[in-house]
Amino acid sequence: MRTSIATVCLSGGLVQKMYAAAEAGFDAIEIFEADLISAPQSPEEIRALADRLGLTLDLYQPFRDAEGVDEEAFATVLHRAEAKFRLMQRLGIDLMLVCSNVGTATVDDDGVSAGQLRRLGELAATYDIKLAYEALAWGKFVDDYRRSWRIVELADHPNVGICLDSFHILSRGHDPKQIEEIPAEKIFFLQLADAPALSMDVLSWSRHHRLFPGEGSFDLPAFLAHVLRAGYAGPLSLEVFNDTFRQTDPVRTARQAQRSLRWLADRTSELLGDEAGPLPRLPEVAAPEGFDFVEIKAPDTSGVEVLLEQLGFDFGGRHRSKQVRLWTWGEARIVCNDQPSSSPEPRIAAVGFDVAGSDPAAERAALLMAPPVHRRTYAGEQALRAFASPDGTEVFLSHAEDWITEFNGGSESPAAARIDHVNLVQPWHSFDEAVLFYASVLSLDPQPTQDVAGPAGLVRSQVMSSPAGGVRLPLNLLPTGQLPPDRQGHAQHVAIACHDIIGVVAAARKRGLRPLEVPGNYYADLAARFDLPEDLLGTLRELDLLYDRDGEGEYLHCYTETVGKVFFEVVERRERYDGYGAGNAPVRLAQQSRRVGAS
Amino acid sequence: MRTSIATVCLSGGLVQKMYAAAEAGFDAIEIFEADLISAPQSPEEIRALADRLGLTLDLYQPFRDAEGVDEEAFATVLHRAEAKFRLMQRLGIDLMLVCSNVGTATVDDDGVSAGQLRRLGELAATYDIKLAYEALAWGKFVDDYRRSWRIVELADHPNVGICLDSFHILSRGHDPKQIEEIPAEKIFFLQLADAPALSMDVLSWSRHHRLFPGEGSFDLPAFLAHVLRAGYAGPLSLEVFNDTFRQTDPVRTARQAQRSLRWLADRTSELLGDEAGPLPRLPEVAAPEGFDFVEIKAPDTSGVEVLLEQLGFDFGGRHRSKQVRLWTWGEARIVCNDQPSSSPEPRIAAVGFDVAGSDPAAERAALLMAPPVHRRTYAGEQALRAFASPDGTEVFLSHAEDWITEFNGGSESPAAARIDHVNLVQPWHSFDEAVLFYASVLSLDPQPTQDVAGPAGLVRSQVMSSPAGGVRLPLNLLPTGQLPPDRQGHAQHVAIACHDIIGVVAAARKRGLRPLEVPGNYYADLAARFDLPEDLLGTLRELDLLYDRDGEGEYLHCYTETVGKVFFEVVERRERYDGYGAGNAPVRLAQQSRRVGAS
Repeated sequence: MRTSIATVCLSGGLVQKMYAAAEAGFDAIEIFEADLISAPQSPEEIRALADRLGLTLDLYQPFRDAEGVDEEAFATVLHRAEAKFRLMQRLGIDLMLVCSNVGTATVDDDGVSAGQLRRLGELAATYDIKLAYEALAWGKFVDDYRRSWRIVELADHPNVGICLDSFHILSRGHDPKQIEEIPAEKIFFLQLADAPALSMDVLSWSRHHRLFPGEGSFDLPAFLAHVLRAGYAGPLSLEVFNDTFRQTDPVRTARQAQRSLRWLADRTSELLGDEAGPLPRLPEVAAPEGFDFVEIKAPDTSGVEVLLEQLGFDFGGRHRSKQVRLWTWGEARIVCNDQPSSSPEPRIAAVGFDVAGSDPAAERAALLMAPPVHRRTYAGEQALRAFASPDGTEVFLSHAEDWITEFNGGSESPAAARIDHVNLVQPWHSFDEAVLFYASVLSLDPQPTQDVAGPAGLVRSQVMSSPAGGVRLPLNLLPTGQLPPDRQGHAQHVAIACHDIIGVVAAARKRGLRPLEVPGNYYADLAARFDLPEDLLGTLRELDLLYDRDGEGEYLHCYTETVGKVFFEVVERRERYDGYGAGNAPVRLAQQSRRVGAS
Repeated sequence: MRTSIATVCLSGGLVQKMYAAAEAGFDAIEIFEADLISAPQSPEEIRALADRLGLTLDLYQPFRDAEGVDEEAFATVLHRAEAKFRLMQRLGIDLMLVCSNVGTATVDDDGVSAGQLRRLGELAATYDIKLAYEALAWGKFVDDYRRSWRIVELADHPNVGICLDSFHILSRGHDPKQIEEIPAEKIFFLQLADAPALSMDVLSWSRHHRLFPGEGSFDLPAFLAHVLRAGYAGPLSLEVFNDTFRQTDPVRTARQAQRSLRWLADRTSELLGDEAGPLPRLPEVAAPEGFDFVEIKAPDTSGVEVLLEQLGFDFGGRHRSKQVRLWTWGEARIVCNDQPSSSPEPRIAAVGFDVAGSDPAAERAALLMAPPVHRRTYAGEQALRAFASPDGTEVFLSHAEDWITEFNGGSESPAAARIDHVNLVQPWHSFDEAVLFYASVLSLDPQPTQDVAGPAGLVRSQVMSSPAGGVRLPLNLLPTGQLPPDRQGHAQHVAIACHDIIGVVAAARKRGLRPLEVPGNYYADLAARFDLPEDLLGTLRELDLLYDRDGEGEYLHCYTETVGKVFFEVVERRERYDGYGAGNAPVRLAQQSRRVGAS
């Protein structure tokens, strides 16, 4: 499977883009015309550089407004095309993307378009160049791949074939199944892009919001399966217009792009089974069964330990060789790591996931280009497999039984508690990358995104979860905001699930815990919305507990104060409640923002 | 005219929002429920604070999912409503917004909805509360104000009226004319919001992209005229959900909001003529006829002066009392101000606009809350009227003949040149504010926005221009980008129009000017796109000139290198070409980005 990427996916100048693509292991690139026009290098230099980097130049694109025009207009098309063919010869590219006419089409007639494509193909042939005709989703007359294929069939020229683009097909809701009816030798090129579920005009959607496979909501494995069943054997090429990727580090974006193709190949191969052919597989790894631990790091984590003790965690011992202490509450394990060299405020530094088969999981992660993390281990200690997630949080594939014996002097915790979810705040430029990372490396499923209003802006939240519900990982995207950081009041948090939150929080308060205060107005609204018994309402108010209910069950929860960048949540899920009390999040955000302001 | 603003328009906590609204001169606020729920203050505190700040609490909102339900569901609606009525009594609010049912409606029957609204109205009446029923654009059954009005008529209860919201009506393309048929006493409330022309689902459009009047593309003066002709005499209240305003300084946003209402009142009053009633007018001021001058400021502006001299500017003299020198090229005037205390890099500090009647213009600006700028003047010097625009650039209302005599020792410039456009880069959080500022204060017309791809991301550009074309002010919005500033390569610029760019640039090169280099690939593309004479193409290439053509004429232009944050463009408009060569902007951005990287 050859991989390719369009230069328009990446930021920077053409040369930078080429280096980034090569470094991420791509075999080829598509030259996006505007990138070449802006480049000071001559076509010969670009060709030689590609050669040195081991990249082939697989496509020149786009050639616009080529067909469906009157004869006079078509004369200028031929003039323009010939100049580009000469340029392509200098570049050593033998395939040009011709997209369906958007701007100048006046003739809505397949015969006319086919005739003009054929003549363009005849001219191209004299330069040993082929044309891949693509139906844009917003083409003036031709906006459906089935019609572009009909036109290619009619054109009936060996140098004229079709280009298939997942965005243009899936964004319009066209059934990709009929791709299988197109002869393999006529599918000249394949472009892949994912996209989020948005309901907006297809042009803006395409130009600003495309994503790499696995980051959006298109079923790309199914799409690719149709193309491969048709017999296509060319490169899998990414063409993603995205406002964020246009402004972030091209090396990092290219790596993310390569990851998306490896994930896609694996998913598609699984779907195709025996038909898969040469598609590379990844080691199969089940989603994690639960959280193994969370590590909190700072030069001094004692403020966190006070909270843990108040909450009901038991001291689980000191690590035999490091300044690390373990706290446990039933199955919930928090590791406090005093590291003089770390950033001053306590933060979540690592999350351990309980993955069955950590060796294949680690191999899978490596094949998905997850950057490995090195941790010094001493004789007799477990060498844990760890990778850096896009926001820098370390992801461990681990099992408590393998490492817990390295901690001495603590006691067991008999309570029935566990980590319910871990909420990680993501920088805006790596949010989509994080979705792909957790989906591909850990096989977590992205849930629909949700916006929560806070005093400093909207917080976008997307939960990544394991099918069985053992792992829930809400990723939060903060407003880029101009408000000073101390007014933003956002932090990461660990939520602990217990069976009796009222008893737990009452006991914790006796041990000195001061939960995040909940405004009286909140309880007045609760009373209006739900027909709650007076005594329960009184207890909620007294203990600063928040409440939610849906058709499946109830959710009671409360928050601790924030220490550094970390706070804790205690939750009780009743019956089959599966949410996170999102309706209560604005109350928390407002209160945290005030707390920070007050301190 | 009473002015009001919904608390959801502003960032921060409820108390902050109230202070901001009061400071900006609002008479009233709408309490958005979520803001109250998150507030630690009791309803009595909020009421007392509003009283002290001189704000009335005009509306409690929203009450959702009230009608079109079965009897069992309606019982819980009554329970919920009664709790809210009691709360409103504590707040001292006598009007509640009831929006059309989105979530729970099961009965699509005007009679049922009307009957339930009447019963809700009967209950509200016992608390001396009125209900304003509003059709949401995405209401499940009721999504049109004409239908909500029919239901209110059917409900036929003195405590049940209608709330009109410009967004819900105009976003659906519903004709607002029939508002005039609604009896004034039944229009209980009016909410105003503008929005950009976007084609996306109306819910996302509403929740994220609303704007203040004058910032978007709705015809709000016409809308308001219909409402006033109906006899509505209540407050003009803003309800704007906007992702940016949610995260920027609430005091500044509130001022911007108040400005938008003053502009809207003026526009509407003009439209209504004799019918306008008590709507306040602003002094009428024509759009500026041209640019009077541009001031560039830095501790040392000599690098800029070298460029000006190379370009062909003549030295126009020294200011008699300040470290300021004038350079002129025909009607183009650049003032270089050496200010030790200014930021180190030369930047555009002020723009003078040639406005007929600068006294009424200044009065208008003051009424629109443009912050005045103080400049020290000495005996015999002209006291110019100046205001700070949202990005801090000072805007002068001035005429060269009034101040040019303060400069001594220079010569006149006989050339036929003038300032064609001034391009100002805007911070992302004040872009929309800038559009409103220039539209309201200077009566410039916003043109459609355009995206330009640069190596560090998309640049959004919107031109504000005077109807006669004398003033063209492109506002550029940079990508928020994570790339380091030195790779972003964006700067502000001044474009000078001349009649013979080829002669001008050839002469400038002889004087040592090195225009921004244009890649050879650009000219290869030019040759493919346009059938240009070989000698013209050769000249363009030789002089690093860029070229554009449209149905109206031709555009030749070139750029200087950047000094600090400023560069210059020389342009020649042939025939009626009215654009800016936007297709060439990516070439410039790429080249500037490389320059910066190289230096």
